[in-house]
Amino acid sequence: MNDHPFDAALRLTAEQAGLYSGSTSAAYWNMVGPFGGVTAATALNAVLQHPALLGEPISLTVNYAGPLLAGPFRVAATPRRTNRSTQHWLIEMTQANAAGVDEVMLTATALTASRRPTWGSEDTPMPAVPRPAGLPEEKPMTGVEWIHRYDMRFVEGAFPTEWDGHGDSSLTQLWMRDMPPRVLDFCSLASMADIFFPRVYLRRAFRVPAGTVSMTVYFHADGAQLRASGDGFLLGQAHAQVFRKGFFDQSSQLWNEAGVLLATTNQIVYYKE
Amino acid sequence: MNDHPFDAALRLTAEQAGLYSGSTSAAYWNMVGPFGGVTAATALNAVLQHPALLGEPISLTVNYAGPLLAGPFRVAATPRRTNRSTQHWLIEMTQANAAGVDEVMLTATALTASRRPTWGSEDTPMPAVPRPAGLPEEKPMTGVEWIHRYDMRFVEGAFPTEWDGHGDSSLTQLWMRDMPPRVLDFCSLASMADIFFPRVYLRRAFRVPAGTVSMTVYFHADGAQLRASGDGFLLGQAHAQVFRKGFFDQSSQLWNEAGVLLATTNQIVYYKE
Repeated sequence: MNDHPFDAALRLTAEQAGLYSGSTSAAYWNMVGPFGGVTAATALNAVLQHPALLGEPISLTVNYAGPLLAGPFRVAATPRRTNRSTQHWLIEMTQANAAGVDEVMLTATALTASRRPTWGSEDTPMPAVPRPAGLPEEKPMTGVEWIHRYDMRFVEGAFPTEWDGHGDSSLTQLWMRDMPPRVLDFCSLASMADIFFPRVYLRRAFRVPAGTVSMTVYFHADGAQLRASGDGFLLGQAHAQVFRKGFFDQSSQLWNEAGVLLATTNQIVYYKE
Repeated sequence: MNDHPFDAALRLTAEQAGLYSGSTSAAYWNMVGPFGGVTAATALNAVLQHPALLGEPISLTVNYAGPLLAGPFRVAATPRRTNRSTQHWLIEMTQANAAGVDEVMLTATALTASRRPTWGSEDTPMPAVPRPAGLPEEKPMTGVEWIHRYDMRFVEGAFPTEWDGHGDSSLTQLWMRDMPPRVLDFCSLASMADIFFPRVYLRRAFRVPAGTVSMTVYFHADGAQLRASGDGFLLGQAHAQVFRKGFFDQSSQLWNEAGVLLATTNQIVYYKE
């Protein structure tokens, strides 16, 4: 089978209902451990594979407890409460450490729900930016594998090229899509929610150790709307509100090419120095 | 003992390490169940009471699985992974339903950590608004008890007085503090993060059934900074980014009177019609 690398990375084998085994993907390797977006998508995938699933994802919070080692891991997804139209999930990823002892690598919660037609309002229009076709494809950094799995075209706030400590803004806008292109779904949207490099790099134009500790994604579109986005680009926008004593936030939006706001997402990120 | 009603509402009795019993507070009753802010604060309090606690709260995500009934409940807080300077928590609230069967009422995760001095930047200044002393105290709605536990002074986006369907903005700014005044701490900050009434009321100037299903709070201040805020007012600001097919988001900030951004918080809220 000639899988897309994203599908290969997310593949889970059911040991029993709600308990899955998987393996990290070299194609999405980051500096230490896999790209966090793929890890978040894997947690969500365990929910989506569950035979008792009700509805579609509305929210997902993943907490990165420790970097996965290359190799096998387990994901457990448990519906803790099922209401008439909503369902609350707990998810945990575990992995044997070097001593062979199982450790918790990720904790997560998710809400799935059946959506119904209602009044609606699009109160956050996509910013007016150049279309992706006219922009160069850029890699924000070198030396990590996962960035080759995405086509990224920066509009503003690209990865600094001069690390001179003279940054003045944390705002990034970029077009992104899977490479090779792949029709959007909840898992790939969850993964792309984590595509923004740490805002502290940009804000300071200075590189320090940094890593996401918790990410929350709100899904504002249903599966049909995601499929309607096809394999086109998403516009992502991210900025930080405050940096203080070792932690900063990232506040982000993702629109499809037609300008539909598909997801809003927030992170809290650890940094040093 | 002459407790502040907030402390009385949050009181937990340890049955064993990490397992606590509590009881809902009539003083913070909402329309159906307790005010969600107090429920979130109770979940956080279970973490703060735990003998194995490391550091102070950095993030908290609470998922409201069902409205608590008036009466006793249990909270279980478990450290799922403890690193050198960070600790990952799972929290669940359970309550016996009318048939006497225990049901999950809330799931939550939290991150606590030891903070260290670092470079920092305050990138979201408090908006220029009138000071609280010159503004009238207002109750955003009638018929619910919890609003009497807060002093609220609206700058913009107060509760609509004409439900004519002619709203055009979801932005609220208000000063808030406990009533009677109480020195700020992590639990009261978590509670006030949920003080904003559903944005759909304001955006539409039309009242529909609505309720928070998940809230994430990022704490940007340590305990010393919270205490330094004393029992003064906080300025809260909230708006929604999108309303679609039964769910909308709320994106919010809370500053102390000195203009220090203490918390940023997001919710996803269910609505009908």
